[in-house]
Amino acid sequence: MDQPADGFDAQTGSVHDPEAIHLLESTPIGRLGFMADDGPIVLPVNFRWVDNAAVFRTLEGHMLASAADGRDVCFEVDEWDPQEKSGWSVIVRGTANEVTNWAEREQLEGIGLVPWAKEHWRPVWVRVDATDISLRKVNK
Amino acid sequence: MDQPADGFDAQTGSVHDPEAIHLLESTPIGRLGFMADDGPIVLPVNFRWVDNAAVFRTLEGHMLASAADGRDVCFEVDEWDPQEKSGWSVIVRGTANEVTNWAEREQLEGIGLVPWAKEHWRPVWVRVDATDISLRKVNK
Repeated sequence: MDQPADGFDAQTGSVHDPEAIHLLESTPIGRLGFMADDGPIVLPVNFRWVDNAAVFRTLEGHMLASAADGRDVCFEVDEWDPQEKSGWSVIVRGTANEVTNWAEREQLEGIGLVPWAKEHWRPVWVRVDATDISLRKVNK
Repeated sequence: MDQPADGFDAQTGSVHDPEAIHLLESTPIGRLGFMADDGPIVLPVNFRWVDNAAVFRTLEGHMLASAADGRDVCFEVDEWDPQEKSGWSVIVRGTANEVTNWAEREQLEGIGLVPWAKEHWRPVWVRVDATDISLRKVNK
């Protein structure tokens, strides 16, 4: 059958797809989707793409932190043009973990990722390691 | 504790919050998050907000259609400004079902929702009925 796998038709890519990686590296906001205790949730967060992983900062008690226990997650970025009815989406599937290794935390502190939300200090680093990356496009 | 629930700090709203409803009514693309057979997934789709539900079109065999079996889902819309480091997100939690009632399908065919993706006819209507709607803002 020539049916697409989802809402956007075109689909290419792997964890090595340079176009998908470039889009992940150049998009500031992504969305973390995971199973919370009370059902599926999708939460936006500003992030960086580092070493095949989406990394972001949060704090204990956040729903975003609650996923960082080795859980399977989906991390999505996209961009679209309502006039052209076009857009693209990169969907990363993988696992979320808190970064506890000191050297790695130190490295991440140096990448210049500042949380957009300012009201609370965000000392917890989370990384979503990709096991699968796919790029979808519509009318592009 | 004065900790926020997630990555974006401010949070208000209910299924009756007029600001959240207005944003849902005026945003063309949302993202459906749910547990697929192989783990959590987040898929973008162009949609309309009708009668306390996100409705969209798909076809049998799509991952989007696979969620429409009464499953708990999350439907998310957002908009952000990288220069201002500001944005908002509306998160709808609810259940996804295929619309099988003839009168309701006929009504939905009349709302003018045309799938952006054109390669395949999309005869299946899905509705995500909201049980909870929340609005998050950062630096807005």
